[in-house]
Amino acid sequence: MAPAVARLALGRVGITGVRKPLTIHRPEAVHDMAACFSVFVDIPETKKGSDLSRNAEVLAEIVDQTVERPTPSLEAACVAISKELLHRHGYATEAEVISEAEYFRPMGLTEEKISLENFLMVASAWASRTKDGVVVKKSIGAEAVGMTACPCAMETCRAQLEKEYPLLKDPSMQSMPIITHNQRNRTRLSLILPEEIEVEVDDILDVISEAQSSPTYAILKRGDEGQLVLNAHRKPKFVEDVLRSTLTLASEKFSKLPDSVEVSAFTESEESIHKYNVRAEHHVTMGNLRAGRLPQ
Amino acid sequence: MAPAVARLALGRVGITGVRKPLTIHRPEAVHDMAACFSVFVDIPETKKGSDLSRNAEVLAEIVDQTVERPTPSLEAACVAISKELLHRHGYATEAEVISEAEYFRPMGLTEEKISLENFLMVASAWASRTKDGVVVKKSIGAEAVGMTACPCAMETCRAQLEKEYPLLKDPSMQSMPIITHNQRNRTRLSLILPEEIEVEVDDILDVISEAQSSPTYAILKRGDEGQLVLNAHRKPKFVEDVLRSTLTLASEKFSKLPDSVEVSAFTESEESIHKYNVRAEHHVTMGNLRAGRLPQ
Amino acid sequence: MAPAVARLALGRVGITGVRKPLTIHRPEAVHDMAACFSVFVDIPETKKGSDLSRNAEVLAEIVDQTVERPTPSLEAACVAISKELLHRHGYATEAEVISEAEYFRPMGLTEEKISLENFLMVASAWASRTKDGVVVKKSIGAEAVGMTACPCAMETCRAQLEKEYPLLKDPSMQSMPIITHNQRNRTRLSLILPEEIEVEVDDILDVISEAQSSPTYAILKRGDEGQLVLNAHRKPKFVEDVLRSTLTLASEKFSKLPDSVEVSAFTESEESIHKYNVRAEHHVTMGNLRAGRLPQ
Amino acid sequence: MAPAVARLALGRVGITGVRKPLTIHRPEAVHDMAACFSVFVDIPETKKGSDLSRNAEVLAEIVDQTVERPTPSLEAACVAISKELLHRHGYATEAEVISEAEYFRPMGLTEEKISLENFLMVASAWASRTKDGVVVKKSIGAEAVGMTACPCAMETCRAQLEKEYPLLKDPSMQSMPIITHNQRNRTRLSLILPEEIEVEVDDILDVISEAQSSPTYAILKRGDEGQLVLNAHRKPKFVEDVLRSTLTLASEKFSKLPDSVEVSAFTESEESIHKYNVRAEHHVTMGNLRAGRLPQ
Repeated sequence: MAPAVARLALGRVGITGVRKPLTIHRPEAVHDMAACFSVFVDIPETKKGSDLSRNAEVLAEIVDQTVERPTPSLEAACVAISKELLHRHGYATEAEVISEAEYFRPMGLTEEKISLENFLMVASAWASRTKDGVVVKKSIGAEAVGMTACPCAMETCRAQLEKEYPLLKDPSMQSMPIITHNQRNRTRLSLILPEEIEVEVDDILDVISEAQSSPTYAILKRGDEGQLVLNAHRKPKFVEDVLRSTLTLASEKFSKLPDSVEVSAFTESEESIHKYNVRAEHHVTMGNLRAGRLPQ
Repeated sequence: MAPAVARLALGRVGITGVRKPLTIHRPEAVHDMAACFSVFVDIPETKKGSDLSRNAEVLAEIVDQTVERPTPSLEAACVAISKELLHRHGYATEAEVISEAEYFRPMGLTEEKISLENFLMVASAWASRTKDGVVVKKSIGAEAVGMTACPCAMETCRAQLEKEYPLLKDPSMQSMPIITHNQRNRTRLSLILPEEIEVEVDDILDVISEAQSSPTYAILKRGDEGQLVLNAHRKPKFVEDVLRSTLTLASEKFSKLPDSVEVSAFTESEESIHKYNVRAEHHVTMGNLRAGRLPQ
Repeated sequence: MAPAVARLALGRVGITGVRKPLTIHRPEAVHDMAACFSVFVDIPETKKGSDLSRNAEVLAEIVDQTVERPTPSLEAACVAISKELLHRHGYATEAEVISEAEYFRPMGLTEEKISLENFLMVASAWASRTKDGVVVKKSIGAEAVGMTACPCAMETCRAQLEKEYPLLKDPSMQSMPIITHNQRNRTRLSLILPEEIEVEVDDILDVISEAQSSPTYAILKRGDEGQLVLNAHRKPKFVEDVLRSTLTLASEKFSKLPDSVEVSAFTESEESIHKYNVRAEHHVTMGNLRAGRLPQ
Repeated sequence: MAPAVARLALGRVGITGVRKPLTIHRPEAVHDMAACFSVFVDIPETKKGSDLSRNAEVLAEIVDQTVERPTPSLEAACVAISKELLHRHGYATEAEVISEAEYFRPMGLTEEKISLENFLMVASAWASRTKDGVVVKKSIGAEAVGMTACPCAMETCRAQLEKEYPLLKDPSMQSMPIITHNQRNRTRLSLILPEEIEVEVDDILDVISEAQSSPTYAILKRGDEGQLVLNAHRKPKFVEDVLRSTLTLASEKFSKLPDSVEVSAFTESEESIHKYNVRAEHHVTMGNLRAGRLPQ
């Protein structure tokens, strides 16, 4: 005989990896992007199955119609989906929507060499049924590939090179950037906010670009490559430094956001001298982040 | 001037994706496996950087030496690494080790067709510095690819087929399994335990295999294929069913484990009729799992 | 002393994984899509390095400007890039451009349940410097996720079920579809053509959809699921069958293309009863494909 | 009516992604490794389907039995599988086996810091039925993650730094390595050989390590990191340089192999200053490689 299976309430039931084209109406232009969504609700013990075909319908109705009526943002689409999920799954107390989409932004080391650089945009929404009605939280975030140069190996290289090249010890040479290992760095910053507060994803990308040793670009002419390398070596950073800069710069850039906003960030460097990565991550409220600021 | 960067305490700093061969001494044999580790510690605001090269050293010392002195299990290796991390990073209050390794187990639909089937073994350890000394928790889990057959489409197919084939309505045909969509299903079950309690990964895999519509096998002769398909269609399951069965069977199989043990599980079906997946997941203590059991 | 390194001519030098937004002007609408490009040229022994920054510039100039002047197709963009690469790398004799982009197409099992389904569009171009000037070949292809149902397990299941359910042997039940394993199937069809011949990617997708046991859809209501399952079980297919159907249907759909056109196809089924996939692939000229047609 | 489907001969029909533990008996020790296999045969127009379950059986019989009777190498296992495939698929004229496995090798920058570094081992075999019997070719290869430092950016950085730090122009400073971008580089070298010739995978890895700017290591103490960075900057390399060095060093290391041996190599650098990779690849016979050697 098959074992009796408990009718347990389950935390998350849903569909994952649903790909959809999304049309976003931004002040400057209308953007089409390919987004990937995962949506979930909880189900109580009294319910055998969540009618999952409803999830796909909600997604299709809300996302497909953005072709006609563009949504202002990826997170606005998530919020609308999360509310509709709770509406259609009458038994559920929570709905969660997770999404990501590739995002292209014009950038360049110099004004003459602007190209469309690719980034990742991430957004989520959580709708909860409370006694005061449905409450929605959302998150907005972005991830950028940039560059880090290691400050520690730079020091040890200087020490070794000074033995071989005594002129390097000359006071005039003290500020000259020295060889070190540098590599691709991926950093993500997300903000968790009440439904009604808006944040621009470009502001998030600006914070990350500033926190890394340098952003990277598709188009660099010979001289530009040298300049970018020089910039990165003048701003050498551990992942710990990139993470702290990201958090600190976020508290400055988003100084008008309430203390209750949550800030989540990670940074990962694909070390050129190792086969593995190094990573730092942190999650903190804006209030605690502000309180924790110390002069350097 | 560069902005002053706060010296914030950071939650997790470490290295990820370190691949190592690990030798495990099991009662029946010595197994070599390729494992992948990520290790982290927290760092306080007073510390500029975590000396990450120590992490790689700890990993190498503990894992590489298993070639000479095999460890009893992947989770035992994680526990040893987490303790040593806390020992060497004197400033840290938490250390986390996450690992996974491929695991091969002899299985077959029949005794004559046994082959080595591949599964994923996962293990973690968390060491915390408390006023009573270092406390360690660990997790042990496994993930198996099996098969689900959908009970809902089976019902609607029966209804449609009965119109076309009236003999299908004959009482003798009521128990005959009817066509439906079936697909690969990936299910993971993990237990979070105190350091001193042992759990066998094969017991975890037995639970998952039983919870799916059917396990899958590398070697099936013509007749075996039909038998496996029949087995799966006689046990059609939603992801909600697979998840509930996994949890219920875990509470039975591990009936001697204390109530404080945490049980975490997810199941994902790669739907043959959709391009996206369906997924269910849950996290619960063994105590609540036991209390929540209802007769079906 | 370092060993003397030969100045060898090299077959392919280039950049890979360049992500770009591309605007395509189709008869019915303007589409924005995110494309991924890899571009290569050969270099002679007299050349130390290919100036790779030129590749990124060519890509950016041609692709970024599609925002203002949309290209008619992904393959047209590849052709333009391949020519410009050869123009700027004066030493090169061959240039190759490989690209892919996600493509959304309105589809549904019924007219009432149309949704945007995701597919992969692939295109390439090869420009060669010959004594008669630059000659360009291009390829256009698409990949679709659909469904296959196994004809062999269906037979063995019928044989087993007939023993248990004798009514199944009744002549009126002979055409009733019987349980079998079914699964996701990924099939790709590409055509290699002279520069001036146009092929519609939707025609390629129509061929693939027809060749699989069934296409799949994001939105299926309860009854629709049953219908799709029924459709697929009435058209059970091995990967060998899907591949042969794809090739045969391609020769019919593209009957006006010259015999010199090359046809390349693969199909892979993610077997629900195994942890591994089954795959079939073939490459043939349209002429040989036509000559090889046999009555079934 | 469904279109008549041609009975076409098909180039490759088989199974992919079969994971198996493999036991290899090497002179110094017995190694267990997890290997991944894909196997294919061609099928003639007279054959509806390839009996794919035979493929899984052949794999299981040959690979699983290595636990009892270890195979001398991954390529020896491929050769045995390819022959047995042709034996069991009597209609087939070609059989192909493709495999890869993770490989750990003790390495270190210094004797004191040896650790087990991870590499990829690749092997294939092709068995053909000819009028003179079955002929088998095999390939043996390896892939290593190492490091490249860019010679071009190093030059432009020197030019820029010399303006700011005039002492850098002093003759004593001419040989000092200057900052540049460096990054992870993945290089693969494979040899295609007659069945009876043996090649050591460690010799292939030695060639690759020497061709990159530097190998990388899991364990590096503070001073070692500086030394590795210094080594890489004293040997700056484009991907074109890495590829040419790999080919040249292969022709030296394997000087006893016949001219008919084929050499295939690629190298890809994950550029720290770009979001995309740069890549070079080449395929050449050992005879042409030897003839093509020019003094540098």
